[in-house]
Parts: sequence; C-alpha cells; structure tokens
Amino acid sequence: MFRVHRTDGDARRGELVTPRGTIKTPVFMPVGTLGPVKGVTPGELREVGTQIVLGNTYHLYLRPGPDIIENAGGLAEFTGWKGPTLTDSGGFQVFSLAPLRKITEEGVEFRSHIDGSTHFFTPEKVVEVQSRLDSDIWMPLDVCTPYPCDRAYAKDALLLTERWAQRSIAFRPNRLFGIVQGSVYEELRREAAKRLVDMDFQGYSIGGLSVGEPKHLMYGITEVVTAELPHGKPRYLMGVAAPEDLVECVARGVDMFDSVLPTRNARHGTVFTFEGRLTVRNAEFADDHTPIEESCDCYTCTHFSRSYLRHLVKVGEILSMRLLTIHNLRFMTRLMEQIGKAIEEKRFSVYRKEFLDKFINGGQR
Amino acid sequence: MFRVHRTDGDARRGELVTPRGTIKTPVFMPVGTLGPVKGVTPGELREVGTQIVLGNTYHLYLRPGPDIIENAGGLAEFTGWKGPTLTDSGGFQVFSLAPLRKITEEGVEFRSHIDGSTHFFTPEKVVEVQSRLDSDIWMPLDVCTPYPCDRAYAKDALLLTERWAQRSIAFRPNRLFGIVQGSVYEELRREAAKRLVDMDFQGYSIGGLSVGEPKHLMYGITEVVTAELPHGKPRYLMGVAAPEDLVECVARGVDMFDSVLPTRNARHGTVFTFEGRLTVRNAEFADDHTPIEESCDCYTCTHFSRSYLRHLVKVGEILSMRLLTIHNLRFMTRLMEQIGKAIEEKRFSVYRKEFLDKFINGGQR
Repeated sequence: MFRVHRTDGDARRGELVTPRGTIKTPVFMPVGTLGPVKGVTPGELREVGTQIVLGNTYHLYLRPGPDIIENAGGLAEFTGWKGPTLTDSGGFQVFSLAPLRKITEEGVEFRSHIDGSTHFFTPEKVVEVQSRLDSDIWMPLDVCTPYPCDRAYAKDALLLTERWAQRSIAFRPNRLFGIVQGSVYEELRREAAKRLVDMDFQGYSIGGLSVGEPKHLMYGITEVVTAELPHGKPRYLMGVAAPEDLVECVARGVDMFDSVLPTRNARHGTVFTFEGRLTVRNAEFADDHTPIEESCDCYTCTHFSRSYLRHLVKVGEILSMRLLTIHNLRFMTRLMEQIGKAIEEKRFSVYRKEFLDKFINGGQR
Repeated sequence: MFRVHRTDGDARRGELVTPRGTIKTPVFMPVGTLGPVKGVTPGELREVGTQIVLGNTYHLYLRPGPDIIENAGGLAEFTGWKGPTLTDSGGFQVFSLAPLRKITEEGVEFRSHIDGSTHFFTPEKVVEVQSRLDSDIWMPLDVCTPYPCDRAYAKDALLLTERWAQRSIAFRPNRLFGIVQGSVYEELRREAAKRLVDMDFQGYSIGGLSVGEPKHLMYGITEVVTAELPHGKPRYLMGVAAPEDLVECVARGVDMFDSVLPTRNARHGTVFTFEGRLTVRNAEFADDHTPIEESCDCYTCTHFSRSYLRHLVKVGEILSMRLLTIHNLRFMTRLMEQIGKAIEEKRFSVYRKEFLDKFINGGQR
C-alpha cells in the first residue's frame, strides 16, 4: 500500500507500507546482493537510517540457495536485517551472462558464474524463489537490453518482458512490481508503461537505465515513463544512485532508488560530502585531523579523522571499507531526508539547485 | 606499577597500572600492528573486554610515520582506542627483513618492506619513536634469533641485546620492559634474565619463542625464565596465544600475552570454542542455524548463525572477517577471565586440566 502525502512539482513525498515496516519515500535502498550490505551489520544499517535493503534473487538462489534461507526462517532471519527487503529478480544478472544464457518463450537457461552448472529460470520460478526468501517486494523476471540496442531488438525484448510480467502476476500478484523496459525509445517506453499499468502491479520499476547511456537520456526516459504511471503507486528507478541523479530523478517523480555506487565507491576509498566527492587516499589528507564532513553525524565522522582514514586506506585495512561505507550510506539517507523535507515544505526546486551547485562545483578532491 | 594479588602454584592474578588505565592480569593483548586491530573498531574492542592493544613501532614508523601520529595527539587519539597500548620495538620485524638489514654495535640499518628506502634504528631512536607515539608500555630494540640457531650466534645476539637494553634504559627508563632472549639455551636465558633484572625494568618480556621450536621447548624455556624474574614485575611472553599455550604458560608464571593468531585465524574462517576449533566453511554448517557457541555472549553469537557465517565466508564477504574476529577476541577474554577467576579461587590446576581436556579433545571440526 502506498500513499503520496505531498507533492512539489513532480516530486513526491509518500509512504510505502510493507510486511516488515513502513518506508518514507523518496528512499535510497542500499544493496545487499548476497544478503549483507558489504562490510556492515544490520545494526549499522539502522543507525545510518536505512529503511529498506535490496537483495538479489539470482545470487541468493545460487548461494546459499533458497532451501537454506527458508530453513533459517527467511532472508530477514538469515541475515539479521529485520526491516523490509526488496529482491531484484536477477534478470539483469542473467542477461549479463551472455553467451552463457539462452532465452526462450518459456524462460531463460543460464550457466552459473560460480561453478558453470546449468539452471532454468521461468517467470513463475523467480516469483516462487522470492516467495520462499520471504522478501517484502518482488521483481518479475524481465529481459534487460544493453545500450546501445536497436529498436527491433528492444521491442522484441519488451514484448517478451510483458508476457513474462503477465505470467508472474497471474502466478502470485502480491508484493510484485512491474518493470518498464524499452531501452531509450520513448514510444516503446510509453506503450510498455501503459500495458503494465493495465495489469495493476503493486508498484512500477524503470529498468534498463544507467547502462551506459548519456545522462540526458536517462533523465528524459525517466520523465517519459513516470508521466504514464498512476499517481498512487510507487516508482522505482533501478540501479541509479549518483547523488546528482537522485535529485534529478526525484524531480521527475521517482520514489525509490538503489545502486551499489555509494557502497562500492566507499570500498574503493571515495566518499560523498555535500561539497563534492573526496578521494580519501589523496596526499592532502595525510595530516588532516578533521573528519570527512564536519556536519555529518555518522559513526565514522564522529570518531575518526581524514588522516587516520587515509592511513587505513593506504595500508589496505578492511576497517576502512566499513567506515567509509557507513559514511556514504549516512550521506545517502541525509540527502534523502533533506529532499523529503524540501518537498514537504514546497521548496524542492530551490533545494535541488542549491544541492547541485555545491555538490557538482565541489567536484572531486 | 604492578601488584600480584593472588597466586595458585606459579600462576598469578595481578594488576598492572598504566597511564591509560589498570589492566587485570593474566591478559591477552590483541594485535593492532598498524593501529587498528584488523577489521574491528575501538568500541568493539571494548565490548569484547579488551584491556590493552599491541601496536608495532617498525610498522607505524614507516606508515603513517611518527610525525602524523604525534600531530594527532598520539596513538590513542589517532586510532580512537583510548585504553592502554603496548608497542613492540619492531626488532622482530627488522630481523625478519634479512638480508635487507645490517647489524652493527650502534644499531641496525634496514630497507623498508614498502618502498625499499633505507632507515637506521638505534636503541635510543626506537625508544624515542615510542615516546612520540605516546604508547603506555615500550619495548627496547633487541636482536631476535631464529629457530634453530647455534649457541655461539645466540650468545652474541644476546650480548648485543643486553648492551642495547642498557642504552635504552639509560636513554629513557619509564614505561620500558626488558626483553629476555637466548634462544632455546637454558643457561643463556638464565644469565640474560639475571642481567636484565639487575637493570631494573618496569617488566620483563620473553622473546624469541613461538618461532618454530617444539612446544615442550617453549614451555620449558618459559619456566626457566620466569623462575629468574622478580615476583613484583609483570612477565610478558611475546607472540604466543594458542589457547592451550596460554593456559600452559600462565601455569608457568606468565602475566601477558599477544599474538595475531586469534584475529588471523578469524579472518581465515577458523574460530575457537571451549570445545575446540571450528572451520566455519565446512559443509556440515551449511544448514546449521545455531550460533558458533551457545554459551558465548559476543555480538556474533547473539546475532548470527553458523549457516549465515558460513555463507559469508564462502562468498568472500568482508563482514565475515569482522564477525569471526569479534568472536575469537571474546573467546580470548572469556578464557583469560576464567583463568583469573580460577587463580583467585585456588583451583587453577583443575581448571587447566578441564579446559585442555575439552579444548584439545574437541579438536578441529
């Protein structure tokens, strides 16, 4: 169940009710592909303000497998993250396996990236696995297109995605979002959105973006799709989370985001601040005994200096990955909280301009 | 300042007062070679009951260097671990660099294992660096012998170690322990202990053991050395921390221990329990939804199952290193607390037998 409480232009402030709790939107979802968000505990996720975590059906299906997770009592009991989880279908991962996969009308055969074993995903099976994981929001199996991708291919992929969506919702409709594909072709995207809306999903995902296309296309397609989606359902832009993209796509009516970007950047030593990005290993921080960001209330900023964090990164200490991940996750929730408040107070367009001025002009140090 | 409160046979229960707090002995000191104990925060160290951490002068001298740590306000401010720290001299590391080091009467010239740059450590310089790090207990520069090592070489190394000890204590006596060397030669060890006791250090370390010699020699030499040391000063057996060795060497009068073993084992997926060692990735734990150890109160055992931890180890997730490190560190403090209590209650010899029966017979699963 989803409700929009306030709007400001196309930006929305709302609430999404899931079996494991209510999520305030707009929301960023950290990625825990294999269960954990890499390097951090469920307690740390809560502490930085995480509302919902994203898991991956393909990866969890292969390791540790749905039997073990079901025996544990579901993903929440297995991982210790007791809040809501959204599981991606694994469509994106399976289609990245080319040429190790074969698409048919029935589903997709693929070979495991771990041990080469052969598996077959149907739309029904992917929903069933997610049901056994007992995650709170499910994604149907879809056909992801690369970029660039010619129109005919994009259209065929889209039509198959729609037939699979129909089978998924017929199999088990609760907790299921529809995924709008159609590459960078506005007409295909519009038609896809309309047909999925007719099927009446719990929410709508925008897939196939952030795969290499220029930013103006990502923003443009997002705008085209959200215009077709019903006001009263949540919209989730898959795989997008650069801070500037978040702000731009909230402005275009998106409610939910996920990406490994903030956590992967952290593990590689890059952190976000409201004044731009910092490369922690830079020599300029060697003797800098101030925190990453004075205004930040995260564990890392309240306990450690740039100098110490740089030392940890330089010597390859795994603690640095955790501490920088905590900061970047807290940055994302602070950003989303500020965006939400700006929408509530009908000053989002001013906030958007001010944030982008500082963040983009701050550049990367 | 050190006081022995109770004895039981040769085992001792005491208290060591340092500038940053009082330590109950016997104590195990986790190793934070480069500052952090790998993968865990100062808060987690406190939570598992850590009383004192060990840093390494050689490593910290090279990275980040004493200037940066001094500018931070010392090692405690730099790393956030505000409790006591003992710094090793780096003698062991420097002598492991052969043939990249040259010993003279004055000191030792060596080439950095990081960038090949040339450095010169004198006994005075090593004490001065530790004074700048502002650690709580200092080790003098010593000459470490390998195993096996012929008697003539061991004797020469020992005599130089003693002359360096004399220079160290003359340079700055406070916070300094003497290090007893002498390889596996009982007569050399006895003489060395006597001469260092004459110099009147704050405490005495037993160096050059756990370098490949059989266990009966490690225990035998420890016994020979502690017999020569004054009752009222702490005794520190360097680099030894297998649980069975801890119990055996407390029985021989040792008060302090350190080793990377519990933390390194954890990062490689091996944990200690009072019923023996577990290899977490073993298939038998795949669907085992119980904690590592039912009786353990650590964060890992109270939040996660063997099944989940095995999954984390199998997929190479860095969170597993942290969680297993927390368990092993808590195991070590629980073991030391039990030992201390057994000494207080004059039942250490029974405790020793019962612990070894269960731990050794538990074997490795």
